[in-house]
Amino acid sequence: MQVLSFLATFAVVISFTAAQTHQRLGGCPDLGCVFPPDQADFLAGQFFDIRLEVHSPVNGTEARAGEPDPNFTFTIAKKGEAGVPATKYFKQDDPKLERWTFSWYEDRFAEDAHTPSVVNVTSKIFRRVALHEPGEYEATLNYYGTQKTVANWLVRKLPTKRRAKNVILFVGDGMTTNMITAARLIAHKSVNGKYLTKMALDKFPVLGHQMTHSMDSFITDSANSATALYTGHKTTVNALGVYVDSSKSPFDDPKFETIAEIFRRQHPNAGIGIISTAFLADATPAALTAHTSKRGEYDHVISTFYEGVTNYTWTEWNGPDVLLGAGAENFLKSEEAKREYYDLFAKKNYNIAWNKTALQKASNDERLLGVFTKSNLPTWLDRNVYQANLLNKTNYPDGSGRDADDLPGLKEMTLKAIDVLHKRNSKDGWFIMSEAASIDKQMHTLDYDRALGELLELDDTVSATINKLKCMGELEDTLIIVTADHGHGFDVTGSVDTKYMEAQHDDRSKRNAIGYYENSGLSQYTVGGPNSLRYSEGVHFPSHWDPRYTLHSGVVAFPDHRENYEVHKDGPRTPAVSSKGDKLGNVANYKDAVTGFLVNGTLPVDASQGVHSLTDVPVFARGPCQELFGGVINSIDIFFNMAECLGLSEGK
Amino acid sequence: MQVLSFLATFAVVISFTAAQTHQRLGGCPDLGCVFPPDQADFLAGQFFDIRLEVHSPVNGTEARAGEPDPNFTFTIAKKGEAGVPATKYFKQDDPKLERWTFSWYEDRFAEDAHTPSVVNVTSKIFRRVALHEPGEYEATLNYYGTQKTVANWLVRKLPTKRRAKNVILFVGDGMTTNMITAARLIAHKSVNGKYLTKMALDKFPVLGHQMTHSMDSFITDSANSATALYTGHKTTVNALGVYVDSSKSPFDDPKFETIAEIFRRQHPNAGIGIISTAFLADATPAALTAHTSKRGEYDHVISTFYEGVTNYTWTEWNGPDVLLGAGAENFLKSEEAKREYYDLFAKKNYNIAWNKTALQKASNDERLLGVFTKSNLPTWLDRNVYQANLLNKTNYPDGSGRDADDLPGLKEMTLKAIDVLHKRNSKDGWFIMSEAASIDKQMHTLDYDRALGELLELDDTVSATINKLKCMGELEDTLIIVTADHGHGFDVTGSVDTKYMEAQHDDRSKRNAIGYYENSGLSQYTVGGPNSLRYSEGVHFPSHWDPRYTLHSGVVAFPDHRENYEVHKDGPRTPAVSSKGDKLGNVANYKDAVTGFLVNGTLPVDASQGVHSLTDVPVFARGPCQELFGGVINSIDIFFNMAECLGLSEGK
Repeated sequence: MQVLSFLATFAVVISFTAAQTHQRLGGCPDLGCVFPPDQADFLAGQFFDIRLEVHSPVNGTEARAGEPDPNFTFTIAKKGEAGVPATKYFKQDDPKLERWTFSWYEDRFAEDAHTPSVVNVTSKIFRRVALHEPGEYEATLNYYGTQKTVANWLVRKLPTKRRAKNVILFVGDGMTTNMITAARLIAHKSVNGKYLTKMALDKFPVLGHQMTHSMDSFITDSANSATALYTGHKTTVNALGVYVDSSKSPFDDPKFETIAEIFRRQHPNAGIGIISTAFLADATPAALTAHTSKRGEYDHVISTFYEGVTNYTWTEWNGPDVLLGAGAENFLKSEEAKREYYDLFAKKNYNIAWNKTALQKASNDERLLGVFTKSNLPTWLDRNVYQANLLNKTNYPDGSGRDADDLPGLKEMTLKAIDVLHKRNSKDGWFIMSEAASIDKQMHTLDYDRALGELLELDDTVSATINKLKCMGELEDTLIIVTADHGHGFDVTGSVDTKYMEAQHDDRSKRNAIGYYENSGLSQYTVGGPNSLRYSEGVHFPSHWDPRYTLHSGVVAFPDHRENYEVHKDGPRTPAVSSKGDKLGNVANYKDAVTGFLVNGTLPVDASQGVHSLTDVPVFARGPCQELFGGVINSIDIFFNMAECLGLSEGK
Repeated sequence: MQVLSFLATFAVVISFTAAQTHQRLGGCPDLGCVFPPDQADFLAGQFFDIRLEVHSPVNGTEARAGEPDPNFTFTIAKKGEAGVPATKYFKQDDPKLERWTFSWYEDRFAEDAHTPSVVNVTSKIFRRVALHEPGEYEATLNYYGTQKTVANWLVRKLPTKRRAKNVILFVGDGMTTNMITAARLIAHKSVNGKYLTKMALDKFPVLGHQMTHSMDSFITDSANSATALYTGHKTTVNALGVYVDSSKSPFDDPKFETIAEIFRRQHPNAGIGIISTAFLADATPAALTAHTSKRGEYDHVISTFYEGVTNYTWTEWNGPDVLLGAGAENFLKSEEAKREYYDLFAKKNYNIAWNKTALQKASNDERLLGVFTKSNLPTWLDRNVYQANLLNKTNYPDGSGRDADDLPGLKEMTLKAIDVLHKRNSKDGWFIMSEAASIDKQMHTLDYDRALGELLELDDTVSATINKLKCMGELEDTLIIVTADHGHGFDVTGSVDTKYMEAQHDDRSKRNAIGYYENSGLSQYTVGGPNSLRYSEGVHFPSHWDPRYTLHSGVVAFPDHRENYEVHKDGPRTPAVSSKGDKLGNVANYKDAVTGFLVNGTLPVDASQGVHSLTDVPVFARGPCQELFGGVINSIDIFFNMAECLGLSEGK
């Protein structure tokens, strides 16, 4: 979907060239669109905007004659009651009618042929409304005389008594169960299949799974998913705190309040802390205050941290109490910012910290802005093991061109945030979002070592946070959540003899360095090695990162094969077949996926199938003794739990 | 590790050519070996054997002069008490000293050079002992005068009161959270990110994660993992109900009792049901009764189903009450069996069923053997959608050469087993293991559609089982567990326009058919389609399996890149770089992994990084309101739960 001028031309720019399922407008299956869309849930009292659109496609498969309806009507009804015009329901004047045109490609063929479908639109928007009474609602858009689009809304009925004083939400960006399993393997010693230590995450008493699909696609980005985590509203890719309408401006889309905004509105003295190892304008921190359809509007993000939404009347927001992370370029007017944000924050009596020393020395009595480098914070692995990579980066956050080398990590930032918020907001409580951002960033570049280092730093941060809150006497009043916003394809399927791989001279021989099943052996990361960490004692990280035997990770294991991603109607697959010469091993079976493309394998060439992976697997239990199966347990516990439940133990 | 004759020769046969971490003998880090090894856990009263070995390597890096010690001693001590000779502790005569030689390769270089390391061995074995008193034990092997190997054992202290009458353990072989997420996506409708229906698994009140690593490698096979699930003992790859010693015979290794054996020993009238969609001699069903270091000893497996262990005194076993699955070739003497097992089972008054009709008609008063096809049961997809694939297989289980086309699925087998056990064993209760085996088998051949079909059949079976037990009045007395034995590398990272892929003519263009993030769109499997199922109404399977837009699944998504599986010491990775010609997109960055091999990508060539995946992600919660985060929840629930916990809801 791409905005055009009112009279459609063919001068279309599509920002995403990779293409598959194209939609006229996400969340809008008919020619009438209601945002918030069908199936939206609301917190009672949460403010939001309502965008209505009526579409009239000019060409393409949905083409119709005539203008989009300028006389559409919109009603709100509690389920089972008669609809009331929204103007009356919300006591607002009828909004001004807007008109625009946009275009989109119906599929990848249309995109290749540069034949967009053009849509004329009429629209209205109700701004800053709220529903207070729990229950089901029907929001109905009537247009073109007889057509209607109904959105079923639910205001959830929740207890109103407060039970937690503080909440800290850790987001491991892109973190999956598979990654936790791999991180545990490289950092915790085990003997004959029994771990001698556990991760902090393993000790959490409750475990759940979370579905991350977005409103209009089953793969989410971090803007979209952070929005869901902080607002209760799923939206579309790249959107922060808004549903995405078809209008051109990224700043007029229908908004909804975030947990930071609601908490601050109800408790003006509540503390808010925002922490990330990414640049602070990045999606996961941004989604707490930003409201835009384009996560790339970084100046908007920093300005909403600073002063909230200013183009419309919205929840008052005077800045977070603590804001710690990276991305100095978005604070410096000399670089990418529209204003000199360091000065603006300082004028609001924020302490400004540009390095770890200043962070730790900063008074706990004042608000704190810490920006420690340009771009993202260097990874834990570079800060603690391969420090030479910190040099010659000219990334000091004041823009002076020096290197940023006195850097805090997620742990130092999080513990300092707790100090400040505990000092300033101890009466009304606080909310912290602390993001291990580079799990995701390093998974994107297939750098599994760095990603697992970030995950282990998150685990260490969680552990230190629990200890600190316990010492402060705040642990029992603090809800701690550790979750992710989406997954990444990652798993471990064996180990690799890197010495053997280096000694081979062709791609197929090199694959023989990979050992699966019993040849996986045990983790070589926890034994021997120099342990040259610049890091605390008594924490669990690998004792070295470059053993001879590493993990066969990330890419999943398979033989040479072809993929066309179609169901195999003629019976089960044979992805690889042995080649004629005995020595050549298996090659892709052409007949298996004639219309597809070749994927060369990552297993020794004698393998003709995929192999198992290391991932923890889920356990579901129901009925007597079910409580024995919760949390992270060991495969052998299944037996002992069943035996206990059957009363088989013969103890004296 | 490979057994040789006593005087070592170089005529070595290695069964596994893929190689990485080589070990002299798994679970045996010193020259003295104790099985059960260090860190083993026991159920009080569980029978087991103890194997002791002393090694004297003839050559290789561990070479020493002289014979292996024939005078080693072995003591047992409760922690903190003095050691007692095992002969005295278990009131057994001193076992006969055994001697043998085996050889192994120290690494892949030695294997390529055919230079095995040879080891002479002295050994003794104590058979059928048990520990009854809960607590910690030290089992100490003293050898070569001053050397000792200590195994720390734990007999778990468990309550002895029985709380469940029946237990049913469903094993989704190879099933991961990622696969459950994908199965839900293709079979359950959603609107704007909210599912309108749930899977049966989603409704389970408790969720945990299970670590699957084996004793000597972090990737397990199904023999090893099933053994852990049924006995509480992790062992090594390919082993069923034994630890693997270095002797030549696959039938003399140290055994330990399984839950089926223990339950039957303590409650002679308890019912046991074993069900699998695999051939019944396969590892997951086999591990309930078999005791061998080689899962491929199929005749041993079937004979232990029939009469238990016969070469040593062991727990009496007269056969399961219900045994349902496939693999007729292992029951027919004319094919691969050593005895005519159908006749033998019939003589023990088993009803024999060879098709679905006979299964469902069989009396519930007698024991039941159902074998429905040779090899594995055809998949759910072939039985229910692409039935033409059932023809011309000459796989009827009587060996007559007819086609097996009247086939039950996991649901029909499981429900019938419950009928029989409920009728026969209602007083003493029953245990069922029901395996969806082809999730694993179809994942091995990268056939994701078939694997997800099997997973959906498992979910449907779980649902039907719960309903049946409820109607019988047995639900509240039955512990139901659904778990897996290991993972497989699988995830979904986007969708594929198969029509567009088919229209492209080269591998790189075909990759443009893949859509990620917003171009993933929504599941096309639940809308439209012919729904030509031969299956029950009202269950959740795709309405069609061949939509134009399919899942970009299984192989994980990445650009062209090279892999050497080593840490990137010079800073974060750049896996792919743009090629010189604008149109060519990104190619592998040679410098990123010079010593590695090329992995061509599975993403559109404009992608230079990996992308997100669809997997459910874990949620950990601790502190007030933690109970709100259990089970399978939605991303937006995180917000609502925090808001509730903070008392932010303003309901009237």
